[in-house]
Amino acid sequence: MDDAAVINNVVFKSDSYAVKPIFFPGGDIGRLSVSGTVNDISMLGAEPYALACGFILEEGLALADLERILGSMRETCHEAGVSIVTGDTKVVEKGTLGGCLISMSGIGRGTVALDENLRVVGGFRSNFKPRWILDGNLAAGDRIILSGTIGDHGLAVLSAQQGLTFGSGIRSDVRPLNRLVQRMLKDVGGVVAMKDPTRGGLADALNEFSEKSHVGILIDEDKVPIKEDVRIACEMLGLDPFEVGNEGKMIIGVVKERGDELLKFLKATEEGTDAEIIGSVVADVKGVAMQTVVGGRRIIPRPVGDPVPRIC
Amino acid sequence: MDDAAVINNVVFKSDSYAVKPIFFPGGDIGRLSVSGTVNDISMLGAEPYALACGFILEEGLALADLERILGSMRETCHEAGVSIVTGDTKVVEKGTLGGCLISMSGIGRGTVALDENLRVVGGFRSNFKPRWILDGNLAAGDRIILSGTIGDHGLAVLSAQQGLTFGSGIRSDVRPLNRLVQRMLKDVGGVVAMKDPTRGGLADALNEFSEKSHVGILIDEDKVPIKEDVRIACEMLGLDPFEVGNEGKMIIGVVKERGDELLKFLKATEEGTDAEIIGSVVADVKGVAMQTVVGGRRIIPRPVGDPVPRIC
Repeated sequence: MDDAAVINNVVFKSDSYAVKPIFFPGGDIGRLSVSGTVNDISMLGAEPYALACGFILEEGLALADLERILGSMRETCHEAGVSIVTGDTKVVEKGTLGGCLISMSGIGRGTVALDENLRVVGGFRSNFKPRWILDGNLAAGDRIILSGTIGDHGLAVLSAQQGLTFGSGIRSDVRPLNRLVQRMLKDVGGVVAMKDPTRGGLADALNEFSEKSHVGILIDEDKVPIKEDVRIACEMLGLDPFEVGNEGKMIIGVVKERGDELLKFLKATEEGTDAEIIGSVVADVKGVAMQTVVGGRRIIPRPVGDPVPRIC
Repeated sequence: MDDAAVINNVVFKSDSYAVKPIFFPGGDIGRLSVSGTVNDISMLGAEPYALACGFILEEGLALADLERILGSMRETCHEAGVSIVTGDTKVVEKGTLGGCLISMSGIGRGTVALDENLRVVGGFRSNFKPRWILDGNLAAGDRIILSGTIGDHGLAVLSAQQGLTFGSGIRSDVRPLNRLVQRMLKDVGGVVAMKDPTRGGLADALNEFSEKSHVGILIDEDKVPIKEDVRIACEMLGLDPFEVGNEGKMIIGVVKERGDELLKFLKATEEGTDAEIIGSVVADVKGVAMQTVVGGRRIIPRPVGDPVPRIC
């Protein structure tokens, strides 16, 4: 029940992508499908190496649009260093899909780098899972790092759905994170849990961490990176940026001895410029709580339903 | 470019299922999605062991229908001896999908049984692929076996689409074939190529065999098993049963020394009662030809388009 399943040492993941519209500021359904599947496999500390792609095309989809999507998939595969090895295409009557759906599945393998990493970290903790990075690995003291700003993807898709212009041009953060993950595990280590906060956003991902690890998590509101225009747009629309989905960010649980080093490493990367240590695993909190800027603590509940439909 | 891809010794396959209606005589989209993916992996001689399932649900789908589909998937998984290990669900607006789509991917492994089988057969042929049964393996002299009647699935779905009643109750043949394949490889051997004639039917599958193996195939019209009511329905509707899709049949290329033994084996199974040796790989035919019952030969071309839309 993590982001992907592990069977016979193969990490296996499948997702359907129904984003609407299929082109949005900063990306499209092709880039999204490759990145989403690659990222879910990466979150277990595994290296994705092959994808299988199923297209559901609506009658009437322009050939130029399909070609643009295929080009975007090719480019994203190249960026991630993975290949699409098999797939199929079905055609359905014109309806409400918005052009096409993509189902993408992927397989990955555990990496030697990860084994080495876990050996390095093993000294800090006794009950370590030997091979995969799992949501249930967190323990008191661990630092929680967010790799960048939240809300960008959901707001970008929403703006395209509603024909809204927020002025400053909010763009999706959709991107594959697998190369960054591998570098991070090799060069720094100490990572005990990872999750990409997609549907349900940061709030959902933190609650999953908390539930699966049976720990409390305390977040510092002041530290959570949100772009100013995203914050303003969320306020205008009555959305909680903590609940809006992202497609190019990850939440990392890291042993406290490595927290600062990992943050420094991330900040030096293109994908992690805005990374912050946003909180830690603490003994005196049940579930997920936030230390607010005005003082006091507020519970962050698991979101009920999607604030923005069809963003992925 | 076979029915599934082989990467790092993992057989990997993905398919989307858009059958409409989602319930049809003899099956439903749940049974179809599990069987279709299991069968494609089996056709390489591999043993499927895990599936990943993506649901696209249309708003308004009755919960009872979803539960019925899930029950059917569970039953079919049990029948095939495979597990669904991961998946996701997306919801889209009510449109023309007919309730839901399922994308199913699966992974499998080469089996020792297959290795043993290939060793047995190795004596007959020099250029043998060591591990997977591929469409390109056929050579002159091989027998072509069809495991049962054709056209049942396509006609069953068509009857449900059009509200036709053909009187005698044509039912889909949809079923998982993996256990039969494994028994066949272990108990008889000699199999060099396998294919399930789904979209495009027997005509398409035979043409793929011919193209990939660079051989000619001659079929004996008289030997191709077709149920009488399917034959009559096809005549009434102007459909060629050779081009109608099946979901529980396979075409098997077998070395001639094992042809009769394999036929006898198949006829003794529940799934293969109607099996026949329908032809062989010959030197004096280009592509696929049929010896007709009235005498003379006719070319079987690759079908252009689907005679019946959305049957899988």
